[in-house]
Amino acid sequence: MAVGNVAVIGFGVVGSGTVELFEKNRAQIEKKVGRPCDIKYILDLRDFPDSPYADRMIKDFDTIVNDKDIEVVAEVVGGKTFAYDYTRRLLEAGKSVVTSNKELVAAKGAELLKIAKEHSCNYLFEASVGGGIPIIRPLNKCLAGNDILQVCGILNGTTNFILTKMIREQMSFEDALKLAQQNGYAEADPTADIEGIDAQRKICILGSLVYGKHIYPEMVHHSGISGITLDDVEYAENAGFGIKLIGSVKKLENGKLGVIVCPRLVPKSNLLSSVDDVYNAIAVTGDGVGDVLFYGRGAGKLPTASAVVGDIIDCLKHQHTVLSLTWEDSESADFIEHYKQVETAMYVRINAQNAESLKASVSEMFGKVMYIERAGRPDNELAFITPVMKEADIDVNLNNLSRSAEIASKIRLL
Amino acid sequence: MAVGNVAVIGFGVVGSGTVELFEKNRAQIEKKVGRPCDIKYILDLRDFPDSPYADRMIKDFDTIVNDKDIEVVAEVVGGKTFAYDYTRRLLEAGKSVVTSNKELVAAKGAELLKIAKEHSCNYLFEASVGGGIPIIRPLNKCLAGNDILQVCGILNGTTNFILTKMIREQMSFEDALKLAQQNGYAEADPTADIEGIDAQRKICILGSLVYGKHIYPEMVHHSGISGITLDDVEYAENAGFGIKLIGSVKKLENGKLGVIVCPRLVPKSNLLSSVDDVYNAIAVTGDGVGDVLFYGRGAGKLPTASAVVGDIIDCLKHQHTVLSLTWEDSESADFIEHYKQVETAMYVRINAQNAESLKASVSEMFGKVMYIERAGRPDNELAFITPVMKEADIDVNLNNLSRSAEIASKIRLL
Repeated sequence: MAVGNVAVIGFGVVGSGTVELFEKNRAQIEKKVGRPCDIKYILDLRDFPDSPYADRMIKDFDTIVNDKDIEVVAEVVGGKTFAYDYTRRLLEAGKSVVTSNKELVAAKGAELLKIAKEHSCNYLFEASVGGGIPIIRPLNKCLAGNDILQVCGILNGTTNFILTKMIREQMSFEDALKLAQQNGYAEADPTADIEGIDAQRKICILGSLVYGKHIYPEMVHHSGISGITLDDVEYAENAGFGIKLIGSVKKLENGKLGVIVCPRLVPKSNLLSSVDDVYNAIAVTGDGVGDVLFYGRGAGKLPTASAVVGDIIDCLKHQHTVLSLTWEDSESADFIEHYKQVETAMYVRINAQNAESLKASVSEMFGKVMYIERAGRPDNELAFITPVMKEADIDVNLNNLSRSAEIASKIRLL
Repeated sequence: MAVGNVAVIGFGVVGSGTVELFEKNRAQIEKKVGRPCDIKYILDLRDFPDSPYADRMIKDFDTIVNDKDIEVVAEVVGGKTFAYDYTRRLLEAGKSVVTSNKELVAAKGAELLKIAKEHSCNYLFEASVGGGIPIIRPLNKCLAGNDILQVCGILNGTTNFILTKMIREQMSFEDALKLAQQNGYAEADPTADIEGIDAQRKICILGSLVYGKHIYPEMVHHSGISGITLDDVEYAENAGFGIKLIGSVKKLENGKLGVIVCPRLVPKSNLLSSVDDVYNAIAVTGDGVGDVLFYGRGAGKLPTASAVVGDIIDCLKHQHTVLSLTWEDSESADFIEHYKQVETAMYVRINAQNAESLKASVSEMFGKVMYIERAGRPDNELAFITPVMKEADIDVNLNNLSRSAEIASKIRLL
């Protein structure tokens, strides 16, 4: 029986984890696949002379793409340049590719899935969202009988760690970010995490998968958590909410999709508000299943490797079966509703001399709002939650209000 | 292109939900399968003259098994007699079978999976555990690269509803059971739910799947929740625990499996303790992925149908591919450790005259125990949590203690 040969491209955190987990559990993996399996090559431009896998290290991509014995390649190099070129060429050569590369799937998923289908091989990316949490296959398979009404989740562990520290320990955003960097949860340049760009890529993947049409990152509004203050955290707590960075996609009544990444006030009764530290969770609402939730470590060496190795096994086991889905490419963003046209309730904090005296005009604008207190609230501060209304209409009101007050903070509710 | 023809056996709660969901979402199901699909027959011995599907109702099983156009059959009739015979004959005829029938999978899974493999068709049972919650496929596919250390969960919605009412509203077990029956969550004869028999079947399925060897229900110790009192609930709360009926299977250091269904004290820091009402949740620990958790409605018409329809789609889409797993049959229970030989910590409540005076001998027996208080604890009552030790050794101590006290309650910790 032909050995199931695998190549790994990129020997960084995820790549080395993939090799480690594969070698550790090789016996049971071979049992599941039904034949011997091997990691034949590891491609990396760097040298790893002391690695136990030094004998398999190569630097030339062509060795992999030209080797007829390679069935599956794990692309865990990340980014869009090399990874895109490599993936395309591998799929065109009929080799299945599995990846944790959310940036590439979000930017080129439709195209790469089409190439895979045309060449009867697979492009799988369970590891691209939620690290080791099973979410792509459950959405694509287990929940396939549902009309999916909404997918929303905590898709970025770094920001969830920071928010947890702010909420639980009253740490400032800046201090919490520093701690995250010290613990290796945040990069030296944390922009992609804290500004919601990483979560944006992930909600694009989930939305494209569920709704069958490629949602590109540039179609999705995102805002991050760097503007959130401990005052906001305290007001939220007092009103029975936690603050989480949420990526969400849902079907609107007009048939378009509402997609956005932003901080949200999440009611304590919602399990998402109990998801702390670097954990991720994704909630899915379907017309059949109701609400289901998937929870676990959304990043890290071995959790991400767990998903990569799962995809490798599936490809090796079903070598000549096209398992992967496809979604249509999209030429315009017509199918996405502008986020300002979507309805939401909004937490608002304002500063004004004699803030209390503005209550009358706030009520006039919004109708019934919910005012929130905090211990030692200064006279010039007021915080409230608006009713559910179109965000553009909230903006009009806040614009009027801004003639007599500074809009210090606004955070959408989930 | 050949129509993907489906038959449904059993038009009860799950069967009618399956037909309803399939018809409602037929357009997107056909898109996913890649060809037209139809429910050609619905088999039930009862008459449904007013059903919109009356034209497809049949009473003769042979019509289905002899119809070459039927590719997939949903067996949602339940039980072991008809269902076993039907499933065997369908698989032998090369037709894939999908089911929500946990009783049959737990009793005959190894045999039926073998027959499916021999006849190049599939036997899928995503709906048999956790209702609509994706758990079988994630365990079998997404987490396939892991060495699974433990699976444990709240597998029965009825008992979780009852325990939630006891904990949140101080309702007695009897009253909570009555309420569950009024709400349609518990059957007139609730034995299978409240004594843990339903959860026992489910943990057998999960354990067989993960560890590759059939765990039969009679190999698994089970105890239910009918003995739990409000006093126990109060002590548990005061010590920072909730009480949940937990099915669990784990790999022990000696290589054997520890499998058991019983009420457990679950620490509030564990997400399982936040899973309330009729919801189910399953926590999986793998050497790669760490802890992941799956949460949702564990029963009910449409949630269960969601899983059945997902399996139907998978079978129709991959008509000539064997997707389903197999596990070995087991001839003896050698690979299961006797539950008394497994280590656990134990909550114990005792009654004795001058209970307080027994503390010295309790400490002598167990070493350091944690005593728990409750408001108005009577003088003749004492509650404590033992250290982690072999259950047989706990029994020896409690047996000694029973000379001077009545052992009123004991509940294992998670």
